[in-house]
Amino acid sequence: MSLARLSLIPKPRTIACIGRNYADHIKELGNERPKEPFFFLKPATSILHPERGPILSPRGADLHYEVELAVIMGRTADEIQPSEALDAVKGYCVGIDMTARNWQQATREKGLPWSLVKGFKTFLPVSHFIPKNKIPDPHNVRLHLEVNGKVRQDDSTGLMLFNIPRILQHVSGVFALEEGDLVLTGTPKGVGNVVPGDVITAGVSVDGVELEEGRIEVKVEERAGGYSKL
Amino acid sequence: MSLARLSLIPKPRTIACIGRNYADHIKELGNERPKEPFFFLKPATSILHPERGPILSPRGADLHYEVELAVIMGRTADEIQPSEALDAVKGYCVGIDMTARNWQQATREKGLPWSLVKGFKTFLPVSHFIPKNKIPDPHNVRLHLEVNGKVRQDDSTGLMLFNIPRILQHVSGVFALEEGDLVLTGTPKGVGNVVPGDVITAGVSVDGVELEEGRIEVKVEERAGGYSKL
Ligand SMILES: [Mg+2]
Ligand SMILES: [Mg+2]
Ligand SMILES: [Mg+2]
Repeated sequence: MSLARLSLIPKPRTIACIGRNYADHIKELGNERPKEPFFFLKPATSILHPERGPILSPRGADLHYEVELAVIMGRTADEIQPSEALDAVKGYCVGIDMTARNWQQATREKGLPWSLVKGFKTFLPVSHFIPKNKIPDPHNVRLHLEVNGKVRQDDSTGLMLFNIPRILQHVSGVFALEEGDLVLTGTPKGVGNVVPGDVITAGVSVDGVELEEGRIEVKVEERAGGYSKL
Repeated sequence: MSLARLSLIPKPRTIACIGRNYADHIKELGNERPKEPFFFLKPATSILHPERGPILSPRGADLHYEVELAVIMGRTADEIQPSEALDAVKGYCVGIDMTARNWQQATREKGLPWSLVKGFKTFLPVSHFIPKNKIPDPHNVRLHLEVNGKVRQDDSTGLMLFNIPRILQHVSGVFALEEGDLVLTGTPKGVGNVVPGDVITAGVSVDGVELEEGRIEVKVEERAGGYSKL
């Protein structure tokens, strides 16, 4: 399939991201296992579509990658039940939840919101749109991420603590999700930092076969303007 | 002017809300004064337009009101400078940043995101659209909020610690704001809780004259479904 025939994901209003949804990732950051799913929001303008330029690293940030399977809503979901949740999904993409880890740590110690440390522009590189029929079971695909060709994350989505129906029940029990909204489902173990000049690749495979629609290849560059701690 | 001639605010993608922007409100919650503006995001589906029904109070939540002046963007603002920031604004509304205060406290102690405690559906009652020319100086209007007719908040926006140009510089230095996006500018002192059955009224006055477009009148009811801690 030629890359030109792949579709961009639709522009969401709301992007909800689940935290701490893989046990080994919780351990590597020394965090507590949550009793219920929790989420934060990223702004729509943090999205970086394929071929749209580098990830911009704010000056002073310790920039971390987190590869995740993202669910794309096909219709409004308002207090949806787990049994109906997957019917409300129209497709998927691979997303990288970029995080300013040092500023996140400071933010957490002060009990402040995560919106800045997760919300910078280009902090959500995404793949092309993956039609729903390409992922028959979203809890049985393999996510992977490499930095400069070296594998850093490679795990099955079967390791999620809260599965997608439970996640959608939780989020839509707080506020309604709408068509095109994006829900990131958490990252497996292996997160780490990148620096300007690094190239991140990521993707998803189904039964050992890589999905062309799920490929991400993106460079990291230092951000010239905008917010910085320097 | 007849109410039917007033316009609803446009539907935003991103709603950024500034925290701790009035000194006396910081004191009343026993918080630290921030060295730079900070913000969190609310989802678009938390908006409650005029006449669209009650604020729904999640079971187990200690529900607090926070009246705020909200800025409505007229164009994209990406790393905007303070001197140009007000040019990018097309109007205003009054908004009430409803907050589950008890859950916020627990969230802050754990260093978790604020998205749930701020993001429930109906947690952002707004007024009608206030055209820019009705508020010649957004730092010189009076915000007020009453519960069952008793005044609880009544202060000038001149008391903001970070003014609107500085706020828009900060947020747009993190990610781009787009036309229709909403930026809430913080609440003055006097926050407190409401319970099912209470009626909240709020508004804004300019030179002592109430703006019809800025009026909010909304009842609080218990939410039947959705997320709860009970
Ligand atoms: Mg993540
Ligand atoms: Mg949003
Ligand atoms: Mg507020």
